[in-house]
Amino acid sequence: MRHFSDRLADAIIAKRSVVCVGLDPDLEQMPLDFVERYKDGTQQAAAACFEDYCRGLIQAVADVAVAVKPQAAFFEQYGAPGWAALAGVVSCARDHGLLVVLDAKRGDIASTGRAYAAALFGGATLPGGAAAPGLAADAVTVSPYLGDDSLTPFTDRCADGKGVFVLTRTSNPGAAGLQEREVEGRPLYLHVAELVERLGRDHVGAHGYSDVGAVVGATAPEALCAVRAVLPAAFILVPGYGAQGGDAAALRGARAGDAAGFVVNASRSVIYAWRQRGTEYRQAAAAAAADMREQLAGVLGA
Amino acid sequence: MRHFSDRLADAIIAKRSVVCVGLDPDLEQMPLDFVERYKDGTQQAAAACFEDYCRGLIQAVADVAVAVKPQAAFFEQYGAPGWAALAGVVSCARDHGLLVVLDAKRGDIASTGRAYAAALFGGATLPGGAAAPGLAADAVTVSPYLGDDSLTPFTDRCADGKGVFVLTRTSNPGAAGLQEREVEGRPLYLHVAELVERLGRDHVGAHGYSDVGAVVGATAPEALCAVRAVLPAAFILVPGYGAQGGDAAALRGARAGDAAGFVVNASRSVIYAWRQRGTEYRQAAAAAAADMREQLAGVLGA
Repeated sequence: MRHFSDRLADAIIAKRSVVCVGLDPDLEQMPLDFVERYKDGTQQAAAACFEDYCRGLIQAVADVAVAVKPQAAFFEQYGAPGWAALAGVVSCARDHGLLVVLDAKRGDIASTGRAYAAALFGGATLPGGAAAPGLAADAVTVSPYLGDDSLTPFTDRCADGKGVFVLTRTSNPGAAGLQEREVEGRPLYLHVAELVERLGRDHVGAHGYSDVGAVVGATAPEALCAVRAVLPAAFILVPGYGAQGGDAAALRGARAGDAAGFVVNASRSVIYAWRQRGTEYRQAAAAAAADMREQLAGVLGA
Repeated sequence: MRHFSDRLADAIIAKRSVVCVGLDPDLEQMPLDFVERYKDGTQQAAAACFEDYCRGLIQAVADVAVAVKPQAAFFEQYGAPGWAALAGVVSCARDHGLLVVLDAKRGDIASTGRAYAAALFGGATLPGGAAAPGLAADAVTVSPYLGDDSLTPFTDRCADGKGVFVLTRTSNPGAAGLQEREVEGRPLYLHVAELVERLGRDHVGAHGYSDVGAVVGATAPEALCAVRAVLPAAFILVPGYGAQGGDAAALRGARAGDAAGFVVNASRSVIYAWRQRGTEYRQAAAAAAADMREQLAGVLGA
């Protein structure tokens, strides 16, 4: 199986884009006339509403984005139908040639960690011995608090062409509470970056990037530079662009290699762009994603 | 709604037990003749196998345990049917008078955090305006790496009678990698304990315990004492008893209040006790849970 990092680098070069669209479905942000069609009040209807909205978005952004990042939480709210809808969204994105970074922020050890990896990537054993499909994501986000033995169940799957993004310096205000605490003269998040480097060293593709990357918020530009210094060969997933306040200038220090070395995620500013633009939600999302690609074109060089 | 901490304290006093049974279903550990009944090879069959096994365990331990701790990962492996099975297990446990601590190790901010809380506790909005049931857990485990704003979406639900256990010092070998790192002269996990104290201060029940507790492994007895010093009024969830090597002596320093102040989780040593005891799996689990209650009786006082 081809390395996740090579599949991502190829897509970035082919599409001249580092755009990742976050799929965070929210009834209160969708057009009223869209939600009205699902008003029978069941979880099935809610899940179908989310799936249909996301399918529309995927079709709209498939040409300009390299990846989508579905947020597992929103789908899990609606139980088993929600989980099935999430599987449908992942499958639709892959059918449209988009990589899927499942934002699940999991993390656990040993057999539990392997079970999470199987849930998100596929491969759980069924009673007859066959493999369960799982969600078939291309990459996932994981949380490092439990330490390296909570990350290896995921990084072990790089051998199957999968990618892992470890939360390193996140884009929320509270991130500083633990992540910026000083440990041996450096912020904790740089120790996490070192762990990412160590875990990713043996999973490097033909483009020179590792399949094990880091999540670093666009709202912390100095952190982006510092993490890049520790991780010269890792992809960085940069959330917080757009609605959360990050901008393109913040990304200069994060460039690495022949395919930017990062992807930039925007959720609300793309998927609810209809609220600002006043056009149909898919048209608005396509236009917002195209604008974002344009704003970020500079980071890809000539 | 009655405080989670009061419901837990009442159960500990009534049953004279601090036993929590971890529900970590694993096809390879179950009796062969049990698994054989589900060999049609579908995810539905696998999910039914897990649910039935756990229902048997719940009935077997309901009199001696105060809580069960289903591990979400194992169910998620089988997609939507797995999620439905997990919901069935939670419901069965509640029907048998057991508290349910859902071990999901989630953590995210703002609307995403609230969506995870709604998925695990219930309460997501449906298109018609009604509330989705969610998994209806009594308490959940959460991971603190994103900081306080990733925990408040969960602790906000204490007002609905829910409990939150924040990963503080876990029982795995790799835990030391981040959790024991020195920050301002103390290990990082004690800073997390302080965060737990702060978040739990406004959620204290009639027994004097907070609804916001900490996860501290039985494999780290000195950490148990140190966390208790920071958290005099919180329940501590202690995993790693039994198979992972923790023992009753390690718990002495963790006692607090009129109902022990902690619950002790054992998974494999109870739910796969049939492998050592050679009896039917439910009988073996009931006997192992009763033995565990006996071993831990000393911590409850006269």
